[in-house]
Amino acid sequence: MSEVKFEFTNHLEITGVKGLPEISEGDDLTSLFFDALEENGLGLEDGDVIIFTSKILSKSEGRVIALAKVKPGSEAERIAKETGKDPKIVQLILNETKEILRIARNIIIVETHHGFVCANAGIDESNVEVGKAVLLPEDPQSSVSRLRQEIEARSGKLVSVLTSDTFGRAFRDGVTGICIGVSGIPAVLDRRGEQDRFGKIARITKEAVADEVCAAANLVIGEFSEGIPVAIVRGLRLMQHDSDIKDVLFLKGNDLFR
Amino acid sequence: MSEVKFEFTNHLEITGVKGLPEISEGDDLTSLFFDALEENGLGLEDGDVIIFTSKILSKSEGRVIALAKVKPGSEAERIAKETGKDPKIVQLILNETKEILRIARNIIIVETHHGFVCANAGIDESNVEVGKAVLLPEDPQSSVSRLRQEIEARSGKLVSVLTSDTFGRAFRDGVTGICIGVSGIPAVLDRRGEQDRFGKIARITKEAVADEVCAAANLVIGEFSEGIPVAIVRGLRLMQHDSDIKDVLFLKGNDLFR
Repeated sequence: MSEVKFEFTNHLEITGVKGLPEISEGDDLTSLFFDALEENGLGLEDGDVIIFTSKILSKSEGRVIALAKVKPGSEAERIAKETGKDPKIVQLILNETKEILRIARNIIIVETHHGFVCANAGIDESNVEVGKAVLLPEDPQSSVSRLRQEIEARSGKLVSVLTSDTFGRAFRDGVTGICIGVSGIPAVLDRRGEQDRFGKIARITKEAVADEVCAAANLVIGEFSEGIPVAIVRGLRLMQHDSDIKDVLFLKGNDLFR
Repeated sequence: MSEVKFEFTNHLEITGVKGLPEISEGDDLTSLFFDALEENGLGLEDGDVIIFTSKILSKSEGRVIALAKVKPGSEAERIAKETGKDPKIVQLILNETKEILRIARNIIIVETHHGFVCANAGIDESNVEVGKAVLLPEDPQSSVSRLRQEIEARSGKLVSVLTSDTFGRAFRDGVTGICIGVSGIPAVLDRRGEQDRFGKIARITKEAVADEVCAAANLVIGEFSEGIPVAIVRGLRLMQHDSDIKDVLFLKGNDLFR
């Protein structure tokens, strides 16, 4: 892992980017993003952090499945009965799953092939045509790295690109924005070894900054009539050349709730 | 629960408030906050959301314990051996605990008397004199309600007040800012029943906005040399007269990881 450059900031601005069209497979997200920036009279600056919802990445990458074409197997049929879910959706969830953690009414908590622990493997039927479901991007880490390269090439600015989803949590109700791919800022900012204001070495000092940025962005990202699938966070002074979302995922043995 | 007023926003500003002194028991946080605003040339506006770290609330409320005065009991001694923690700290954790969830090397995950699931009952030895530990506020929900009343009375503006801590999570490494008391904005924004852009009723629509706000604020709150214990989020258009942090805490039976 490369060195993290970090300066403390005390002012951030978060702006939702409106005006992107409904995204289809093959759409050039980078071009559509720059078109929307222009429409909104927005520009980019060095250090900007750009957050794309996973849903528009998924749509541009063809991760939209027509349910009519899904043939549920016997395990999917069994879990569908147990959960009350559509067997076709259950089959899609199983296809994306490394391990099932919990099954309850209308919900299947899994670890996806990417290593994300979430409900229903992140598969979602909202904001897509009736009869279709959207899977998470196949490799969101690669997607954001590519988007970052394209956006930096076109703008001439050094930016970060993240992709966010909304996951539920253990112990607390409701979902929050969470990061599933990060290029530019670190996934986790490790401040171990720094002293507190009393000269002691501080104890808990790994901050999941990429998740905090996606939670912040989610306050301006609107999945309903707002239709705001991209946000820009300006003012963070954080950079890690080779950041990777894997850095925030617990190794299974370190997770007290697995 | 009263009605939630909600308008979508696409622009937020987050500002860290510097210049508060080290806080001691009995300090008037509201006065010190207004002094710091003035020093920073900042004012308040209707709708501002003010986030105080739980640590300064705790200090002003005398929730700082001299470890020399703590007498660990037999359960604390036993768990101290198992975890490698100081028996006095373990005793303080037990005092604050309703139920122990997990015990591992150097960590005890508990549900506190407030209902928060967190490591070590939120007890922290950083940013306090050597030989002392800081407990979570006794009733952070009451603390923020009082602060909100005081700040509204003095400013003449309608504001929200939240208090934040940093908790670890299941499944992911690192801590994030999280809300432990909320007055003014809802703890959870329930958008069930709203339609997505394709006319369908959206499915996952409870957003833990107070936690997202505290995660966002944590990007400008600095516990190290920065010494920034307060942040202001401007631009949210959210109001619930009688919001309560209890609204985001899972009832035990609803939590798949308890």
